[in-house]
Amino acid sequence: MRDACIGVDVGGSKIHVGVVNREGQILATRRAPTEIERGAAALVETIATLAEQCCDEASVAPLAVGVGIAGQIDTRAGVVRSSPNLPELREVALGLRLGERLQCRVIITNDLRAIARGEWRFGAGRGVSDLVVLFIGTGVGGAVITGGQPLVGAGGFAGELGHMPIVANGRKCHCPGRGCVEAYVSGWALAARAAELLALHPEHTPAFSSAHGVVTAHDLAGAFAAGDMLAESIIAEAAQHLGAALVGITNVFNPARIVLGGGVLEGLPHLVHLAKKTLERDSIAVSYNRVELVHSALGSEAGVIGAATWSWDELVLENP
Amino acid sequence: MRDACIGVDVGGSKIHVGVVNREGQILATRRAPTEIERGAAALVETIATLAEQCCDEASVAPLAVGVGIAGQIDTRAGVVRSSPNLPELREVALGLRLGERLQCRVIITNDLRAIARGEWRFGAGRGVSDLVVLFIGTGVGGAVITGGQPLVGAGGFAGELGHMPIVANGRKCHCPGRGCVEAYVSGWALAARAAELLALHPEHTPAFSSAHGVVTAHDLAGAFAAGDMLAESIIAEAAQHLGAALVGITNVFNPARIVLGGGVLEGLPHLVHLAKKTLERDSIAVSYNRVELVHSALGSEAGVIGAATWSWDELVLENP
Repeated sequence: MRDACIGVDVGGSKIHVGVVNREGQILATRRAPTEIERGAAALVETIATLAEQCCDEASVAPLAVGVGIAGQIDTRAGVVRSSPNLPELREVALGLRLGERLQCRVIITNDLRAIARGEWRFGAGRGVSDLVVLFIGTGVGGAVITGGQPLVGAGGFAGELGHMPIVANGRKCHCPGRGCVEAYVSGWALAARAAELLALHPEHTPAFSSAHGVVTAHDLAGAFAAGDMLAESIIAEAAQHLGAALVGITNVFNPARIVLGGGVLEGLPHLVHLAKKTLERDSIAVSYNRVELVHSALGSEAGVIGAATWSWDELVLENP
Repeated sequence: MRDACIGVDVGGSKIHVGVVNREGQILATRRAPTEIERGAAALVETIATLAEQCCDEASVAPLAVGVGIAGQIDTRAGVVRSSPNLPELREVALGLRLGERLQCRVIITNDLRAIARGEWRFGAGRGVSDLVVLFIGTGVGGAVITGGQPLVGAGGFAGELGHMPIVANGRKCHCPGRGCVEAYVSGWALAARAAELLALHPEHTPAFSSAHGVVTAHDLAGAFAAGDMLAESIIAEAAQHLGAALVGITNVFNPARIVLGGGVLEGLPHLVHLAKKTLERDSIAVSYNRVELVHSALGSEAGVIGAATWSWDELVLENP
């Protein structure tokens, strides 16, 4: 039987589970909607079922399970302390519950910290010691590796780049704050801004309203390509905010590389193109000269590969 | 003869030089205006003269000299790459020139990185491994210690907390950027905002215009205490921006302690009082619960003690 770990990526809208070997290759994978409104018990059951299906398909008994979750994760206690986009998971001992259900060692961590580990080891972050990872999907997550070490912080909650304010006293975020990066460039923020502008311009025949009522990055990209003016202005506005975030990241961390990923950036490549101009114009020159902006190499599998790699590192190799 | 190093703090408006022993005690000290418009050669001469005076007074031959400068410093090459508030120092080999003049080993570094070392070893940062230092004077400088290590970055320029944008596409900063923390809360920004508001309200008899034409934190504090409404609104506005900066720092670094200092914060304690309310309301709870806001313990001597401590560490102890 092959050695493998399970990686689980719990996002605001999707759960992604995979069996991953020590070389970071996915042997089997399953996805399901998060449906967090069904509660924590249902989430544990969904993850466990997907994990069992993957293990059956790949014919492996997993050595460990790594779970990455968008939120403030107490890895040592195995507890989700809070999660702006999954509020039902507040103070949930997800590690313990999933470990009991699967009868396997489980480690939980912040989703972006897992992704950064995956990109650093197997993806677009290979070979550098100063790396920032920024993913824009439903929410905005970040993680930092500095001087070859993950940025952890006093309680383990460091790296929340999506919750840097870029507009003092600005738009309300899903976290307690205002004016955060996430409140301007995340999937939920773009959808809210689109709805707001459509309400303000009822005369506008929206090229980007979608059948299911929520405008996605994909809808906006299509409308933008078709020359829709509202889509253009939404994207230009978001790019200005993403640009400010990249300037802050560059000036504060002086990274060798920034790895960008997530559904919104994959769906709206023009957003990064515009934000780069702000980065070039506004950041401190000596830091700008050293930074490379690259796309995630692991793409939509970054979360699963990263979480599994995390469990390999922390549970299998460190504590065999 | 006693063992001692020289610490030099080169700020936007003042140079401060001191002889410091290994316990972080100042044995003699001198100050002079920076007068950077006289050029780099005059700056080197001023620093050297002050250093010689201090050494005479304390009767020491220094083991090494440490210099902290507000700007992007290439410590290995001994070169100031750039400095938003001392533009004349662009690409100046200050370390080499000062070493030749003083016939002594010299190390140069970012002023806040030196201050953080001083506060960490001898001041308000003792005992914690996750520390952020934010000083607001003429400009705004920052430095970070994370997991017991200084945040350095790929080129050594990390920690520029004063140049995080907190207002996307906002006020022009002295750095290439817009909307930076420094453009809203620094000494120069408060003076500019005061001038702007006084021009807008010619009917206002300013309680805070000063004889020398530039409004200082001290002038504003006096006017605020006397109930001046313009001073009140300038301070409230700055506090909102400082609050956003503290939220970003707390969410991104999850520090155990934030050490605040510098002339503007010393002159305007009310600014921190107001900004704390934003920090409490807006930051991610698990990170807010862990952070202490404290004042610099080394105060106006932090730069000199820090720079001297840096030279002790890097030149005397590491390379005796």
